[in-house]
Amino acid sequence: MLIKTLVIAVVAIQLVSARPGVENNQDGDESMHEVRRIKRKIPGVSPDEENTAEFWRKKAQLILNDKLQTKENTNRAKNVILFLGDGMSIPTLAAARAYEGQKKGQTGEENYLSFEEFPYTGLSKTYCVDTQVADSACSATAYLCGIKANMGTIGVTGSVPYSECEPSKNESTHVTSIGRWSQLKNKRTGLVTTTRVTHASPSGVYASVADREWECDTDVKILGDDPKECNDIAYQLVNGETGKNLNVILGGGRGKFLPKTIVDEEGQKGKRSDGVNLIEDWLEQKSGVNAEYVWKRDDLLNLPEETDYVLGLFESSHCNYDMDRTKDDPSLAEMTEAAIKILQKGDDGFFLFVEGGRIDHAHHDTKAHKALDETVAFSDAIRRAKELTNSEDTLIVVTSDHAHTMSVNGYPTRGNDILGISGIADDQLPYSTLSYANGPGYRKEEDGKRHNISEDNMQDKEYKFPSLAPLSSETHGGDDVGIFATGPWAHLYRGVIEQNAIPHIMAYASCVGDGVTLCDQ
Amino acid sequence: MLIKTLVIAVVAIQLVSARPGVENNQDGDESMHEVRRIKRKIPGVSPDEENTAEFWRKKAQLILNDKLQTKENTNRAKNVILFLGDGMSIPTLAAARAYEGQKKGQTGEENYLSFEEFPYTGLSKTYCVDTQVADSACSATAYLCGIKANMGTIGVTGSVPYSECEPSKNESTHVTSIGRWSQLKNKRTGLVTTTRVTHASPSGVYASVADREWECDTDVKILGDDPKECNDIAYQLVNGETGKNLNVILGGGRGKFLPKTIVDEEGQKGKRSDGVNLIEDWLEQKSGVNAEYVWKRDDLLNLPEETDYVLGLFESSHCNYDMDRTKDDPSLAEMTEAAIKILQKGDDGFFLFVEGGRIDHAHHDTKAHKALDETVAFSDAIRRAKELTNSEDTLIVVTSDHAHTMSVNGYPTRGNDILGISGIADDQLPYSTLSYANGPGYRKEEDGKRHNISEDNMQDKEYKFPSLAPLSSETHGGDDVGIFATGPWAHLYRGVIEQNAIPHIMAYASCVGDGVTLCDQ
Repeated sequence: MLIKTLVIAVVAIQLVSARPGVENNQDGDESMHEVRRIKRKIPGVSPDEENTAEFWRKKAQLILNDKLQTKENTNRAKNVILFLGDGMSIPTLAAARAYEGQKKGQTGEENYLSFEEFPYTGLSKTYCVDTQVADSACSATAYLCGIKANMGTIGVTGSVPYSECEPSKNESTHVTSIGRWSQLKNKRTGLVTTTRVTHASPSGVYASVADREWECDTDVKILGDDPKECNDIAYQLVNGETGKNLNVILGGGRGKFLPKTIVDEEGQKGKRSDGVNLIEDWLEQKSGVNAEYVWKRDDLLNLPEETDYVLGLFESSHCNYDMDRTKDDPSLAEMTEAAIKILQKGDDGFFLFVEGGRIDHAHHDTKAHKALDETVAFSDAIRRAKELTNSEDTLIVVTSDHAHTMSVNGYPTRGNDILGISGIADDQLPYSTLSYANGPGYRKEEDGKRHNISEDNMQDKEYKFPSLAPLSSETHGGDDVGIFATGPWAHLYRGVIEQNAIPHIMAYASCVGDGVTLCDQ
Repeated sequence: MLIKTLVIAVVAIQLVSARPGVENNQDGDESMHEVRRIKRKIPGVSPDEENTAEFWRKKAQLILNDKLQTKENTNRAKNVILFLGDGMSIPTLAAARAYEGQKKGQTGEENYLSFEEFPYTGLSKTYCVDTQVADSACSATAYLCGIKANMGTIGVTGSVPYSECEPSKNESTHVTSIGRWSQLKNKRTGLVTTTRVTHASPSGVYASVADREWECDTDVKILGDDPKECNDIAYQLVNGETGKNLNVILGGGRGKFLPKTIVDEEGQKGKRSDGVNLIEDWLEQKSGVNAEYVWKRDDLLNLPEETDYVLGLFESSHCNYDMDRTKDDPSLAEMTEAAIKILQKGDDGFFLFVEGGRIDHAHHDTKAHKALDETVAFSDAIRRAKELTNSEDTLIVVTSDHAHTMSVNGYPTRGNDILGISGIADDQLPYSTLSYANGPGYRKEEDGKRHNISEDNMQDKEYKFPSLAPLSSETHGGDDVGIFATGPWAHLYRGVIEQNAIPHIMAYASCVGDGVTLCDQ
C-alpha cells in the first residue's frame, strides 16, 4: 500500500508540466514547490489526530513534564551495563526506529527504540590517535579502557604502532578496562556479543594487542609475528588476568578456541595451530567452581541455577544475524538475560558489556535491511536488561563505537517504506531513501547510467543498498555517535564528550578504577 | 603537506602486494589490515602527547569533573535565544569542527565548535505530519510554534494542506510562535538570519501561511492565489501582530519589501506587484519610536544608542555567504551583537531567534566547503551571544531544523584535510572524505567510470562534492539533529525528543505561553 502510493507520486512527478516559478531560487535555495505540491496529492498516511495543534501541544507538555519529573539519581551504581551498538550511527537510529515502527503497523517515524527513551543523552567524539575515523579496536580502547589509541590496536597506548609486536610487549604500554577495574572491587563481570568473542569490541574488555586480527595463534603467525611473544586474543581471554576472571563470556568465535585438528559441535574445524583447546583449558581452570560451557540456545536457556561462570560459544565465527537465527542460536536479548542472571548473584554488583556487533557488519555490506533489523534486536536486548534490573542501583549506558556512511535522504512521505524508494532523480531514475557513501552496493550499468533500483527487490534482506564509491567493504563514518544513559549518575552523560571519557564516568558512579569516584567523597 | 601524505598513502596502497589473509573475513566482517598497515607507515600527524595513557586519563577526568561541577540552573530565564543552524546535521558538526581546527593549524578532530561546549545535549526528531524528512517550513512551525505541521506550511496546523489558501484563511488553524508568547509578556523580540527575512525558518517567528514560497504578493499570484485572501509573508512581517512588534529584523530579502518599480540601494529591483513599499510602511508605523532602517554594515555597527527598533535588510535576496561577504555585509556575529544590544534594553527580557540559514543552501549545492564555513560563522555568532549575555538569566538553545545527506567517510589519517581525499576505492579512483547521497555533485564520465576527483580543485569554495544520485538540489536528511543548551533550565534539553517540544521548554523556563511554566509554581 505504501509502495503503491510511492509509484503514484513518481508518475505524478513526471506528468506535471513545468509551472511558472517564483523568483526565490538563488544558489543553494531549495526549489521544492513541485515536489511538495505532488506530495499533497498523495493519499496521506499520517494519522488524522496529528492535524490538530492540541495533539502536538499535549505531546510536548508530556515531554516537558517527563523532563521536570526526572530526578537525578546520585546513588552508587552497584551494577553497570555498557551496551555497544557497533557502527550504530545517528542516521541508523532514525531509520531503525522507522523500521521497527512500520513492522508494528505504524507510520514509523513516531516510534522510539528502547534506549531512545532513556533520560540522558550525549554525543561522543570517536576519532583515534592516528585516524580521523575510528575502527572498532581503537574505539573499544577508548570506551572500555578510557584512553584513545591507534587504529587497529586494543588495550595499549598510542605509543604502540599498529601490528607491531615488539613495542606491545612492554607492559607499560598496556591498559586495562573497566571490566578489570570492576573485578578489583569484587564485582562480577561479563561480556556478551553477537560477533566472535575475540573480535575487536569485546576484546577491549580483556586484551592488550597491537593488532585486532591476532584473534588466534594462527592469525598472529600469518601476520608475521610469534604468538609466544605476542599472545593471541583468545589465549588472553582464557589465560589473561581479566579474561580468566570473567563470569560470563557469550557470543561466537568457537574456532579461535579450538585446534585445527578438532571439528566442533556444528561440524566446523578449529583454527588454532598450537594444538591448544582453549575451551578445555577454560573448563579445567574452572574445575573447582560452578562453570558451564554451552554451544546452543537450549543449553543457555537451561543453565543450572547455581552457575557462576559460563562460556557460551554459539558459532564457529560470528553469531548469525538475528534474521538468520536457527533453533540453536540464542538472541542477543536471551544472551543478555542469561548474563544478568549470573551476574546478579554477586554481592558486590557487576559490570557487563553487551555488544550488538553485527549492525556494523550489515552496514559494511550495505545491507541496510539487516543493519536496521540488528539495531532493533539490540534495542530488544536493552529493553530486557532494563526490565531485569533496577534503575536505582544499575547504570545502563548505550553508545556506539563509530558511525557509518548510510544516510536517510530525499523527501519521502510519512510512513513511506524506510527500505523503499524516496523519489525520482534528475536522470528520471528512482533513488532510495537509504544509501551509502561507498561500499559493495555500487553498481554501474553498461550504458553508464545509474542502476534502476525499481527493478530490484529492495525488501530482500540481502539487498545491497546503493553506494557512491565502489568498495568491497563500506567504510565507517567520522560523525559523532550518541550516548544514552539511565540509572545512577546517568546525568553525567551529556554534552559533546571525547569517547574515552565514557568509562571514567561509569567508574565514578560505581566506585572502581584509579580516577575520582563517588566513594572518595 | 597533509595532501602530500595522502598521495603517499594512495601510492602505497597500490604497491603493496597481496598478503596472506587471516581467516577473519565473513559476510560484513571488515578486512582492513592492508589499509591499517599502510596508515601506520604514513608520517603521523597526531601530537606525541596523545601517545600516553596519562594524556587521555587527564582529559577524561577533566570532562568528568566538569560534569560534576555543573549545577542545574533553575532561575527564571529572563532572556531566551534560539540559534538555528539550518540543515546543520550531526555529520556537519564533526566536519565543521575539523575544518575550523585545521584552519587554526591543529589536526582538527579535537576541536570544539562554540556550542559543542554547552553543558546539555539532546536529539531532535524532525519528521513532519506528512513527511518522513522535514523541510524548513514544517520544522520552523515545530521548533518555534510548538506543533508539527505539513511540509511547506508555516504557522498553521496539519489540517492545512500545502499551498491551499482557502483552508489557511480559517484563523483557528493559525498558531503563534514563542516570539509572540514572549511579546505578550512584554519581552522584546527579534529575528536575525542570513537568508531573506521572509524565508521559511524566520517566517516561523511571525507568519501563518499554507505555502512558504508566498514571500511577496507576486509569489502568491504566480502560484495561483490572491494575496488579498492569503497575505504574503513580507506583508505579515510588517503588518501582522507578531511582526509589527518585533524590535529587531535583520537579514536579507529587501526585494520582497519593495515594488517592482523601485530600484534599491544596491541596484536591485523590488519584487512586489502591489506597489506597496513595506520598508516605508514599517518606518511610518514606527514613526513615534526610535526606529532605524539600515541596509549596510556600517550603519548597523553605528546604530544610534537609543534605537529600539531596527529593520536591517542587507541584500535584495539572501545575505552573501560568509566567505563572499563584501564591506557592506555584516557577519552573522555582528548582526547577533547588534540585536542583543537592542533587546537587552527591555526591562522584561527578550526572545531572539538567530538563524545560520545558508549552511543549508551550501549543502543543497553540495558545496561542503561553504557549508562547513557557514557552520563556523554560525558558531562564531553563538560565541558572541554567550559573551554578551549572562548564563544566570539567559537560556541559549542551539539546534537545527533537519539533517542533510553529507557523510564523513573512509579511514582518513588524523589531521587529513577534511575537504580532501579519504582513500582509493576498488576502481582505483580516489574518493573524498565528504560526499552526498544526492545532489548536483553527481558526475558521469563518458566512459561510465567514476569521475576522478584528483583532477579537481577541491579547495575551491564553489567545488561541488560528489553525489550518488543526480539532483539539481541535494535533499535534506531524515536523521535526528542535535540540541545544545546552556543557561536556566537548559538541563531539560536531554534525551530524544520531538522537535515541537523545543519551544515548550523555552516557554517553561521564561514563563511565557499557554503551557505549564516555572511561574505557575
